[in-house]
Amino acid sequence: MQVYLDNNATTMVDPTVVEAMQPFFSEIYGNPNSLHKYGTASHKALSKAIDQVYKALNASDDDDIVFTSCATESNNWVLKSVWVDHILNGDKNHIITSEVEHPAILSTCKFLEEQGVKVTYLPVNHEGIIDPHTLKSFITEKTALVSIMWASNETGMIFPIKEIGEICKAKGVLFHTDGVQAVGKIPVDLQAVHVDFMSMSAHKFHGPKGIGALYIKNSQPLSPLLHGGDHMGGRRSGTLNVPYIVGMGKAIEIATTRIEEKMAYIRAKRDRLEDALLELDDTFVIGERDHRTPNTILISIKGVEGEGMLWDLNRSEIGASTGSACASEDLEANSVMLAIGADHELAHTGIRLSLSRFTTDEEIDFTIKQFKNAVERLRGISSSYAKQKPTKGGEVQECDLHHHH
Amino acid sequence: MQVYLDNNATTMVDPTVVEAMQPFFSEIYGNPNSLHKYGTASHKALSKAIDQVYKALNASDDDDIVFTSCATESNNWVLKSVWVDHILNGDKNHIITSEVEHPAILSTCKFLEEQGVKVTYLPVNHEGIIDPHTLKSFITEKTALVSIMWASNETGMIFPIKEIGEICKAKGVLFHTDGVQAVGKIPVDLQAVHVDFMSMSAHKFHGPKGIGALYIKNSQPLSPLLHGGDHMGGRRSGTLNVPYIVGMGKAIEIATTRIEEKMAYIRAKRDRLEDALLELDDTFVIGERDHRTPNTILISIKGVEGEGMLWDLNRSEIGASTGSACASEDLEANSVMLAIGADHELAHTGIRLSLSRFTTDEEIDFTIKQFKNAVERLRGISSSYAKQKPTKGGEVQECDLHHHH
Repeated sequence: MQVYLDNNATTMVDPTVVEAMQPFFSEIYGNPNSLHKYGTASHKALSKAIDQVYKALNASDDDDIVFTSCATESNNWVLKSVWVDHILNGDKNHIITSEVEHPAILSTCKFLEEQGVKVTYLPVNHEGIIDPHTLKSFITEKTALVSIMWASNETGMIFPIKEIGEICKAKGVLFHTDGVQAVGKIPVDLQAVHVDFMSMSAHKFHGPKGIGALYIKNSQPLSPLLHGGDHMGGRRSGTLNVPYIVGMGKAIEIATTRIEEKMAYIRAKRDRLEDALLELDDTFVIGERDHRTPNTILISIKGVEGEGMLWDLNRSEIGASTGSACASEDLEANSVMLAIGADHELAHTGIRLSLSRFTTDEEIDFTIKQFKNAVERLRGISSSYAKQKPTKGGEVQECDLHHHH
Repeated sequence: MQVYLDNNATTMVDPTVVEAMQPFFSEIYGNPNSLHKYGTASHKALSKAIDQVYKALNASDDDDIVFTSCATESNNWVLKSVWVDHILNGDKNHIITSEVEHPAILSTCKFLEEQGVKVTYLPVNHEGIIDPHTLKSFITEKTALVSIMWASNETGMIFPIKEIGEICKAKGVLFHTDGVQAVGKIPVDLQAVHVDFMSMSAHKFHGPKGIGALYIKNSQPLSPLLHGGDHMGGRRSGTLNVPYIVGMGKAIEIATTRIEEKMAYIRAKRDRLEDALLELDDTFVIGERDHRTPNTILISIKGVEGEGMLWDLNRSEIGASTGSACASEDLEANSVMLAIGADHELAHTGIRLSLSRFTTDEEIDFTIKQFKNAVERLRGISSSYAKQKPTKGGEVQECDLHHHH
């Protein structure tokens, strides 16, 4: 059985989406900027896709939603153009973000620090989210931008975007949110919160990799990151990726239609998996269940190296992760776990399981079984765990492969 | 009959390329950065695609070729990162380009001028290309970069890249070329010329829209435009667009395999079309045939507005262009024609016809017939052309619909 539980890293493209894209490769292939029928043939499909995105996010007609190549581009765009517009060519010098943002934010902030920008990395609480009041105390007259994620890729924790938006609005500071892990997973209503800019990527909600968007409230000014042929009203140049734009529209429509039903379906499976894994001794999950996106578990298994666990799961054809795929090649400790104060050893024990609407009950059953086997096997060969471990039965059982609480 | 002659704007994706991409949407969909089998399953295909691109361009193993979302991104990347690396954080202040570059270069240069960068826009000769000796005289100690296209999107004219590269090398100045209209149309051998950076886009050679690359000689330093999860060795972050990378590899392999044969096939059709159109009075084509990419004609038809001509051709289901698709919504005069000294009226008469390896003889026959009909009809209703026109027969024939020379 193949079980893909790494949907926060990327998702399978929904076959319906693949089908919707097909005509735009070799049949309707003109450049939408061309005046002839080969160019204009895609305009109806593009309009539909744009409408699908606006509707999915409840954006207003006054807002701009601009297609980009991914959320990494959207994130770089906002941070670097705010730097150019308000710091290089303005009187600001400060950006606020959090310690647990995606590398697309954190690496860009490091780059901006090298350019002389002052960056505050807000600390997080024990659940890995920031306290809006902490944010408030860091905003100064020199602050150009606050950039805080909507939901964590690692823990699934949902951030207090409404409160953060209100603080930024009251202080007159621009607010950007990386919405990558929120869009398609939880309701995102851009008229119910105050957000100036929001980044998203289609491949997190069963659209293709290589297409994303940036939401811009009230179509406010922001220098382009990609200058050129004035595509998208001069916002973002580059020949339109028609198949993927059509695919993103379809994918976001599917993901957000009756989203509460879809959330309930996924949450039921996630909770059952989580309950079963928590039956194991010395395991804990980060963040209150109700405060998380409904598909995500970041579980720490004391005495079990994340990479060893991944290897065992992989042999059972279960795809999981130790954290962000964007950092997983490094085999680093989980950065969110470090940020919430876990020691370095514990931070190496995190395993992220992220479900999708394609996850089945059979896959959950199989995963529970294989996961428990793997933990027992790995703890069995881990002398350090067995030696340190205070068992309930009294004595330390060095080779107790079947210990439960 | 449908005739698509706007292949410099974009191309049909080769059905073979579409087929090669299919498995990577819903079957092999993992994030290549993930450690599990769903992630590593695409590594072989990605390696193959990279090899295909290196081989097609005769790049050296010491060079970097980094996938981007398009040449517009590649162009913005080079110009803006040279600005950051060598001007903001260095002692240079000057960039040299030409008057006839693509908007992705020209608009970016305008943006850089707003940031205080000095930009020289080199004039072009009557064929629309720059003279290497002119370039030489403009390079100073403050020059950070020279950016000159390899071939013109509008005229097809091939620029003296070898000579320009040698001048830049001798002067110790970085050289970037926008290779968008060269790659796949003419042989591009990156070990035979001195080029530090080259931009390209797959959709110009029957690959998909939304994927391109930047070639970086000797893997030399260049700050990223997209910071993030350190994809592609930290060069360009963002989850890899696996299907399109595979598609680009396949497309460039097809386009460059036996390229001389493919060029001869296209050139024969282009020359036949060009000869037939030049039989019309008061028409001229910009640039010597042998100095152009083998698929391109930019023809000026005195007395015929380009837009009127496009409209007539479009009614016959022939897709052509008045110039760059990236500017065509503006209905502006052809910028290259203005640059070579054509007056404003004449610059409105340019029609670009760009063929591909999928163009057939039947399509050429049909186009010749429809083109001639359109010119006659439009000149017939153009009082200005008929009044000014010195006919060979002596008297001015205001309604002479069948005039030939």
